[in-house]
Amino acid sequence: MLRRKRIWINRFGEASNLILKEEEISQELEDDEVLLDVHFSGINFADLIMRQGLYQDAPKRPFVPGYECSGVILKVGAKVTRFNTGDKVLAGCLFGGYSSHLKIREKNLIGLPEDVSLEEGASLPVAFFTAHVALNEMGRVRSGDKVLIDCASGGLGSFCLAMLKEKNVEIVGLTSSPKKTNQIQSYGAKAMTHIDFYSDSSENNFDLIINSLGGKSVNKHFKRLKKTGRLICLGISEGIEKKRANYLRFIKTILSMPWFPILTLFNHNKGVFALNVLHVISDEKFLMCYTRALEKFLTKKKFPKIDKVFSFREIAKAHEYIEEGKSAGKILISWRKD
Amino acid sequence: MLRRKRIWINRFGEASNLILKEEEISQELEDDEVLLDVHFSGINFADLIMRQGLYQDAPKRPFVPGYECSGVILKVGAKVTRFNTGDKVLAGCLFGGYSSHLKIREKNLIGLPEDVSLEEGASLPVAFFTAHVALNEMGRVRSGDKVLIDCASGGLGSFCLAMLKEKNVEIVGLTSSPKKTNQIQSYGAKAMTHIDFYSDSSENNFDLIINSLGGKSVNKHFKRLKKTGRLICLGISEGIEKKRANYLRFIKTILSMPWFPILTLFNHNKGVFALNVLHVISDEKFLMCYTRALEKFLTKKKFPKIDKVFSFREIAKAHEYIEEGKSAGKILISWRKD
Repeated sequence: MLRRKRIWINRFGEASNLILKEEEISQELEDDEVLLDVHFSGINFADLIMRQGLYQDAPKRPFVPGYECSGVILKVGAKVTRFNTGDKVLAGCLFGGYSSHLKIREKNLIGLPEDVSLEEGASLPVAFFTAHVALNEMGRVRSGDKVLIDCASGGLGSFCLAMLKEKNVEIVGLTSSPKKTNQIQSYGAKAMTHIDFYSDSSENNFDLIINSLGGKSVNKHFKRLKKTGRLICLGISEGIEKKRANYLRFIKTILSMPWFPILTLFNHNKGVFALNVLHVISDEKFLMCYTRALEKFLTKKKFPKIDKVFSFREIAKAHEYIEEGKSAGKILISWRKD
Repeated sequence: MLRRKRIWINRFGEASNLILKEEEISQELEDDEVLLDVHFSGINFADLIMRQGLYQDAPKRPFVPGYECSGVILKVGAKVTRFNTGDKVLAGCLFGGYSSHLKIREKNLIGLPEDVSLEEGASLPVAFFTAHVALNEMGRVRSGDKVLIDCASGGLGSFCLAMLKEKNVEIVGLTSSPKKTNQIQSYGAKAMTHIDFYSDSSENNFDLIINSLGGKSVNKHFKRLKKTGRLICLGISEGIEKKRANYLRFIKTILSMPWFPILTLFNHNKGVFALNVLHVISDEKFLMCYTRALEKFLTKKKFPKIDKVFSFREIAKAHEYIEEGKSAGKILISWRKD
């Protein structure tokens, strides 16, 4: 038997509603499963929306959120071929990642090279899946493109900058904080605050725009596309407020999102995508395909910038840190830090 | 002086409203112009819509329609460097192509290789610009993609098949006529009638769908996209009827076209573009860029299938032939055939 800690969403609401529970579990495994001693779990923006009760694809309560983690294999099932006890791995999971131990199928795991840390491993799956699908699958970014990343100082945004860096594209990165422009420039991108960008219409003709804010910014960005260009919406962070669900703000944001009648698109000669990557990878076919892409990408040794690692006991603080707009990179929780 | 014949749209309505006029013009040229003895002019679907009065980007009446032609250079302006008298060329023009002689800027011309006929030259510009922007610029089609071409036996559709043939993609081509399936198969594509396709939902998971029909087919096609896939709308031929504008049908078709709220796109993880290529190339920057791409493409010796060449005196018949759905490829008029 094994004592496992997990963090649950029982009731929707503030971060303090997240509940830590311990339980005894058997070490028995299915043939294709491994038992993972989780060291780090990644926190994603979707987890916060889920906790606020605004995420339609969430499981029924109570549930354990979490899409990604890393750890060391404690035990392997009878038919596991790619891993052994003691191997360092990362895991992409559809919920359940906020857990000190995981029973997980071999195919959801990727072995970590010696020189990649467990922190780096846990920070990668969701950021990679999102950036890969947005930039390479939907956007099909290519050499010579001009690309706008709208929240370029956050975990995902800065990872997009890192992925784009080798691609010979011209990049503009937006941030709400003038303090974070240096960070954006360090990736070779031009940095602008949202205020400067919207008051200066000379930066336009983008081939690809990655929009995470949602709301009114969608239409503003759409106007800045080049003819033949594409806008990819990743979220509606503009609609999310601190600490607890503000339904009015959420609904106002949603109502301010544009509808694109095909006939209007004919006048603009542009394209629009929206991506909820968690929805895409919930299809086994895509998860496997992108997991293989992630495995290949690992050799590039590019990781989201890790801003802060909280103890699992500080999970509420970790959520609040993101909600309050303080994060400048990936946020993890550690199951070893007490 | 020179006698020039041109075909005018004076009044909107049936094909018989097209008017042939002759006039005397001087042979004087601007420095960067050439005088072109036009042999063939291409007829496009947009010309028909324009004649019916349903095309918003048309010039004010009276005007001479026509986006493309080919011919032999009669005279060159003082600063023309790339061409000489006697050269065979094709021309992309923004209106005015229904003309036996053209004064046109050097940069709008492309020289035709010895082994390319003037018929082939006149058939290429609009088909190439449209297919190139849809497949390569917006769609960014790539090896391994599964592609649907919805009107695959028409001039543009069959040209898309020809362009895709070398790209290692899986293609399904739709046609309304069971007789035209052989033609589609000859490009290595799977051919299906529209009826068979809509009654059999097993053909789906497309990375790229080219939709020309518009109307309700847009939503039907959208459903057949793979997650991360893109739909590119090229027109609304479903809304166009024989001979004269049927406003009711046109408006009904337009109203049946879907609106894509961003939030719905989030549930589907797909993208939508609409393309009016004539709108794109009306921007000099794009016209020049695509003209260079066309110049390069000429070496591939791929041309739209030419279905029929009418005499310029039969322009009304040529329009009606397309309107009645008889065309199975490109339609040209000849200024030499009386």
